[in-house]
Amino acid sequence: MATEKSFAKGSAAPGPVPKGHIRLFSMRFCPFAQRTRLVLNAKGIKHETINISLKDKPDWFLEKNPLGLVPTLETEAGEVLYESPITCDYLDEVYPQNKLLPQSPFEKAQQKMMLEHFSKVPPYFYKIIMAKKNGEDISGLVSELKEKFVKLDEDLVKKNTKFFGGDSITMIDYMMWPWFERLETNELKDLLESTPELKKWCGRMQEDPAVKASSYSTDTYKAFYKTAYIEGKPDYDYGL
Amino acid sequence: MATEKSFAKGSAAPGPVPKGHIRLFSMRFCPFAQRTRLVLNAKGIKHETINISLKDKPDWFLEKNPLGLVPTLETEAGEVLYESPITCDYLDEVYPQNKLLPQSPFEKAQQKMMLEHFSKVPPYFYKIIMAKKNGEDISGLVSELKEKFVKLDEDLVKKNTKFFGGDSITMIDYMMWPWFERLETNELKDLLESTPELKKWCGRMQEDPAVKASSYSTDTYKAFYKTAYIEGKPDYDYGL
Repeated sequence: MATEKSFAKGSAAPGPVPKGHIRLFSMRFCPFAQRTRLVLNAKGIKHETINISLKDKPDWFLEKNPLGLVPTLETEAGEVLYESPITCDYLDEVYPQNKLLPQSPFEKAQQKMMLEHFSKVPPYFYKIIMAKKNGEDISGLVSELKEKFVKLDEDLVKKNTKFFGGDSITMIDYMMWPWFERLETNELKDLLESTPELKKWCGRMQEDPAVKASSYSTDTYKAFYKTAYIEGKPDYDYGL
Repeated sequence: MATEKSFAKGSAAPGPVPKGHIRLFSMRFCPFAQRTRLVLNAKGIKHETINISLKDKPDWFLEKNPLGLVPTLETEAGEVLYESPITCDYLDEVYPQNKLLPQSPFEKAQQKMMLEHFSKVPPYFYKIIMAKKNGEDISGLVSELKEKFVKLDEDLVKKNTKFFGGDSITMIDYMMWPWFERLETNELKDLLESTPELKKWCGRMQEDPAVKASSYSTDTYKAFYKTAYIEGKPDYDYGL
């Protein structure tokens, strides 16, 4: 599924969504799309993945989603959904197996509040990459990011659970994971030395089958980042 | 309920949430808190409102919600929730009467996508207020906002329904309304002349009992804005 080459402008449009499947438009190295890939994997949902060349999007993709974003889901009925948390909530609601969101309305709201807090984290990764590229000092950004990690570590200490929603993996863990998988690639792994509970959480996450199935090695991420951010020509098909 | 004076630093903390009620921490003129007030009203939920002096927040409020944001909900069990869409979804899930979110997972996802698009609108109101205050040219901001309104107008034309989720009011209408109620106050009402369907929607919204119950007059908003943005001393109790 994840071995397919990306579709660029001028490529032939895919046919209808295969019967009994849902279709994911993705980009292999996109952390937001990885959220949806994690949920598809964790729930064992039959799906087809179409990777998109984000620098050169096919017209037929922009017709389906004028914003041109990944992840985008397409159902057998031709319904189109996007925004990673929206796609993940939809999958969890429609496919009853292995529920990832809590049934309790308050616990569900708690996960949404955690996600809202966490939404401040991903922009730091992009800002740090760009600052490095421009030869700027990143120490301010890194120490701001460290504060966020300390807060997450405190949350785990307070909860005294293995994961953010309890002792088993739930939706919020999958929503946060993709950025932790990219810590080493971004030379930010040392941050975890100040946040021992968060570091243990990372170790637990790496053992999860859905995480394993959706991951790439640090070497692969590094090679892709080089093409995307240093050479300015992202190789979406790196390693295929 | 909405006639109570705001609680500032040094004020006595309120007692437990009254039996059979939910408590809303609000600020009478806050558009985000109005979302929750609209949902509480539309669903006829018994609630107590505690208005907060946002420039001078009581310590006991910051203990309940360290972010110090309104709206914040507090349940009889002492559970605390914040972020306006999270509070509204929670209320709709816990209180079964007059469901505001669609039951269909795809239609629910559509409302969330509309809300995500709409989330680009509120910042314009604040930017325009600030630009005016600083004597800056607002024409660029206004024409960007106009584009968003044109898109919303096109959505209504495409749907051919009275409201954004169908022919009756649903959650998405209440999520968007507070900023339209403030158009005249912000001298932006002319924008609706280019968006006739959106203008008709505004007319329909103004007839809704929950909208009527949660609204203030343009004169009141103008008077509050003067204290908040010109004088720099927001009078949260204006008109009481």
